Amino acid sequence: MNAIDFKSLAQRQRAACINSVTGFKSANLIATVDDSKQTNLAIFSSCVHLGSDPALIGFIQRPASVQRHTYENILSTKVATLNQVHEGIYKQAHHTAARYPREISEFAASHLTEEWHDDFAAPFVAESRFKMSLEFVEEVPISANNTVMIVMSIKQIFTDKAIVQADGYLDIQQLSPVVISGLDRYHRVSFLERLPYAKPVGV
Amino acid sequence: MNAIDFKSLAQRQRAACINSVTGFKSANLIATVDDSKQTNLAIFSSCVHLGSDPALIGFIQRPASVQRHTYENILSTKVATLNQVHEGIYKQAHHTAARYPREISEFAASHLTEEWHDDFAAPFVAESRFKMSLEFVEEVPISANNTVMIVMSIKQIFTDKAIVQADGYLDIQQLSPVVISGLDRYHRVSFLERLPYAKPVGV
Repeated sequence: MNAIDFKSLAQRQRAACINSVTGFKSANLIATVDDSKQTNLAIFSSCVHLGSDPALIGFIQRPASVQRHTYENILSTKVATLNQVHEGIYKQAHHTAARYPREISEFAASHLTEEWHDDFAAPFVAESRFKMSLEFVEEVPISANNTVMIVMSIKQIFTDKAIVQADGYLDIQQLSPVVISGLDRYHRVSFLERLPYAKPVGV
Repeated sequence: MNAIDFKSLAQRQRAACINSVTGFKSANLIATVDDSKQTNLAIFSSCVHLGSDPALIGFIQRPASVQRHTYENILSTKVATLNQVHEGIYKQAHHTAARYPREISEFAASHLTEEWHDDFAAPFVAESRFKMSLEFVEEVPISANNTVMIVMSIKQIFTDKAIVQADGYLDIQQLSPVVISGLDRYHRVSFLERLPYAKPVGV
């Protein structure tokens, strides 16, 4: 066991290092539109469960000093979709991280297909096998580094009903989603075990 | 593709369902002490990268209506450790979720070993292969469901230096960490591909 001297690393190395330390991260594409229906698509590895009732998720947006099309679009239109990244589309999903100007949609640039539902203002990713419509709830400022957590409520979930288990669990493993480590490493996941509800012993 | 009617599920099924939707989650043990040196250990699947410089992570604490020993200890002592869960200890790690009274340490109850460093007030998990000392930065209230995000800065990282890569990345895959899906499904991870830095094409 060694102490890792991350504080002396150059900026890029430090980013790669510190992006590794929380472990494997889910890969999701967040799709939005602006007021003129220009679409945007961006990969996020910071989506986190906040609560089940109300059904809330959060994700982290970078500081105000950089371009944040997703953030601006959500504040403007109040909606987004979250689309899980699977083994068949992770290369296209990774490409959405390239810095395209606002007038170019990452859907087209990354060869992914917009899927529109009549009753929702943001597009879904047609190729994704697990997708949700989301409505804006609040933005939570993190003053320590000028980031924000965007809190969204889950309106609808779309996936193959064959993955719904008796206990309510959605067996996403069947959909071959990938996980990210650091900034650019992609991994596949295989089932190990379901553990029973944890109960105190000997008290 | 089907719409999943999560709103009609009973409470437990709904929790299992909505805990599945953000994808696979990292498994980490957070260790703390109270003012009388009573230790506490709890598994968290909500750790998220917030930034690299300063090196910040966050995790979600449940509403104030439930017992939150980790939260109370961090507010009191301002420190914690984060310890990655690998294939060799995931059953013990899962057991820390059992509701033990404050005077029983989940270290002993889960058969995990306290590891103390002279210069840090919270214990590490001896069996973990990747661990960090953390200092409290701020708590960020999420008013939508009365949870909080605890923001912590990374003081030191301890792991095997053999996992440090030339680009700064820490190849945690070598340590066999597990990921969680839903509330109780554990999975292993295998490397797929490193992708190049995403650059715009044709603009």
